[in-house]
Amino acid sequence: MNTYAPVSALSTAREISSKRLTPQAALDHCRKRVLKHEGSVKAFEELAEKWVANSGPLAGIAIGVKDIFDTFDIATTYGSSLYADHQPSIDSTLVTMLRNCGATIAGKTVTTEFAWFSPGKTCNPHNLQHTPGGSSSGSAAGVAAGFFPAAIGTQTGGSIIRPAAFCGVSGYKPSFRLFPTLGLKHFSWSLDTIGFFAARAEDNAFIAATCSNRDLMINEADNSAPRIGVYRSQIDDLMSGDMAEAVDHTVKRAEQNGATVVEVIGNDIVEAARAAHAIIQGFEAVLALADERRRSAQKLSEKLTEYLDECSQITPDQYDDARRTANHARKASRQLFEECDILLLPSAPGSAPETLASTGDSVFNRMWTLLGMPCVNVVSGFNHKNMPLGIQVIAPFGKDKKALQAAHWLENISHR
Amino acid sequence: MNTYAPVSALSTAREISSKRLTPQAALDHCRKRVLKHEGSVKAFEELAEKWVANSGPLAGIAIGVKDIFDTFDIATTYGSSLYADHQPSIDSTLVTMLRNCGATIAGKTVTTEFAWFSPGKTCNPHNLQHTPGGSSSGSAAGVAAGFFPAAIGTQTGGSIIRPAAFCGVSGYKPSFRLFPTLGLKHFSWSLDTIGFFAARAEDNAFIAATCSNRDLMINEADNSAPRIGVYRSQIDDLMSGDMAEAVDHTVKRAEQNGATVVEVIGNDIVEAARAAHAIIQGFEAVLALADERRRSAQKLSEKLTEYLDECSQITPDQYDDARRTANHARKASRQLFEECDILLLPSAPGSAPETLASTGDSVFNRMWTLLGMPCVNVVSGFNHKNMPLGIQVIAPFGKDKKALQAAHWLENISHR
Repeated sequence: MNTYAPVSALSTAREISSKRLTPQAALDHCRKRVLKHEGSVKAFEELAEKWVANSGPLAGIAIGVKDIFDTFDIATTYGSSLYADHQPSIDSTLVTMLRNCGATIAGKTVTTEFAWFSPGKTCNPHNLQHTPGGSSSGSAAGVAAGFFPAAIGTQTGGSIIRPAAFCGVSGYKPSFRLFPTLGLKHFSWSLDTIGFFAARAEDNAFIAATCSNRDLMINEADNSAPRIGVYRSQIDDLMSGDMAEAVDHTVKRAEQNGATVVEVIGNDIVEAARAAHAIIQGFEAVLALADERRRSAQKLSEKLTEYLDECSQITPDQYDDARRTANHARKASRQLFEECDILLLPSAPGSAPETLASTGDSVFNRMWTLLGMPCVNVVSGFNHKNMPLGIQVIAPFGKDKKALQAAHWLENISHR
Repeated sequence: MNTYAPVSALSTAREISSKRLTPQAALDHCRKRVLKHEGSVKAFEELAEKWVANSGPLAGIAIGVKDIFDTFDIATTYGSSLYADHQPSIDSTLVTMLRNCGATIAGKTVTTEFAWFSPGKTCNPHNLQHTPGGSSSGSAAGVAAGFFPAAIGTQTGGSIIRPAAFCGVSGYKPSFRLFPTLGLKHFSWSLDTIGFFAARAEDNAFIAATCSNRDLMINEADNSAPRIGVYRSQIDDLMSGDMAEAVDHTVKRAEQNGATVVEVIGNDIVEAARAAHAIIQGFEAVLALADERRRSAQKLSEKLTEYLDECSQITPDQYDDARRTANHARKASRQLFEECDILLLPSAPGSAPETLASTGDSVFNRMWTLLGMPCVNVVSGFNHKNMPLGIQVIAPFGKDKKALQAAHWLENISHR
């Protein structure tokens, strides 16, 4: 069954602002999709009892909230049985920012256990036998299925970009700390990054710009082609054949539409961040889950327990070394943009694997998360199984608007 | 009434390890002090019902926990009536780190409202008419009064170093993010820094090294005199006369004991961080308290409400500019150490003011908090009112051991 039917947040807001649609009707439209297809997609950890329209620039926009963000009015499980009945007393900051703009919280969406690897129940709306990716599984799948026009999630390894790619929607992982993580259950505070899911880049830009009051909106008058750097590194042989074709095809189409394209070869200093990621994440996860490990170890999954036991061997010196490696890589990453505005590379090794026992591999994401650079997934096409293939646009740290604008340009030329 | 009687954590641990003292007897000794003097000092927001000895390197060490850190077994108010009955479900990470070493949590110590300015009930153990400083009021006063050998607190402006100075104990504000802030109620996540209070620098080093497994212990064989830079800047005219004398006296004594001393003049790039601090703190406080402001505004103090209203005018651009200013200042701060190992400057404009309506001024602290550099308060002497005067040792980012070692050296020569 294919339940793919994303709804544009920007178009919805425009229809509402021009009075062609009421906020409540917009919510009701999405809610009908939920009632029809949630039984098969399973995007929600908990669906909000009612969706009531508010006022503000995001009135009528239902937003799926990954169940790793605290909400004062809906239980928050962090994907763990340990927190099955956990009711936070306040909202996480990002949720309040969205409510302050009139958004309606659709409910809590399924996350893997503590936003790490052990999968939840969610299925891929393109094909229910395939993983939606993780850890922001329900947020990505829910946007793809048209349950809500937008959703929020987090990326510590590849948890925004990968599920967006697998589900065929736009995923935007902002520059590190551009959006506050307060009220988030942390797994690794040097990596955990808040991000957004929506139909297209312009929708993500709209939501992110509106709730933060930042200059992130797509400039629709700007049709200029970006200077693209196709990023090549040692891990490229992990790409599937259809992914390699999708990259080539996207590059060719971009060139035909006026983009200049160069190859950018990953240098050793930047690439060293890949190994540093594992050390930083592991060391911090042991501390982030210190109380759970001390008092409730039996309620953690076996996989997580083993991981934490192993990571507890990482010394402060190894951690500090990894942080230094990351800092050097952040500085060296500027060189990658000497001849291009943005980098282009796969969002994942291929399309969503045909399994619900794993959320796929974040190998093409982890390094960029540690470097803190903005990443946007662009739906680049569909393979022979009709599963989406995602390519990510990456801009220098702090150049989020450039990443979103380039993603928008790539989306536009794919329709020509 | 003077209730000043700090207890050394390191000596206590050594007595316990050599079996001259049992962990429970060590706890009972401190608890007696609490029962005798808490009525006048008022260090506790909530005293733990019982103090039970555990095993581990911190067995027998009672630790005061600022009531801004979550604890699973004691209510956590964040100094706000809004959270009067708030019971977190888990410990903050630092509390678990301490428990994992066998420390006994003495209770929750008084903090100002959300660790900002509005004072709690705590009095200064040297003279109950004087402020203990803030925001970590109860942690500093409790160590000074011998209620517990060590305590934890946080510094966003000057909330470790100032109360340590006012109460005449060692205060250690580590390098930014050296200790994890998970489970802390944030006010400004780019500034909030975890820190320690204890009798002397060697005690703080012992607690911090033990719970983090980091190389921070004082090397007692190392008696070498530090190269001292006396930091001079535009705000020096805010120093009281007795403080200026204390600085001069400390410098003279250091020289007599073999230290080389130079003057270090604050440069414009570093000093610009002082103004940036206010913008960063204000912008982030509005987001950190977004839910409280949205749903429970009437439970915030008038002063805080006004502050947040004012700060909500700070734009993302102003905030980003301030962050850039801070980054430049961090780089430029390395130049300050060209001819010295550590900087020396007042911990506060003077001794603790004779008032309980204010916690004093953090003007000598804020910039260093933003720069993220390790600071240690050293009790430099007492003024004519017999109130302590504190001077801070500041080392380059990441050189925490150097700061602690230099503070230890200064403490030692003050007894010669």
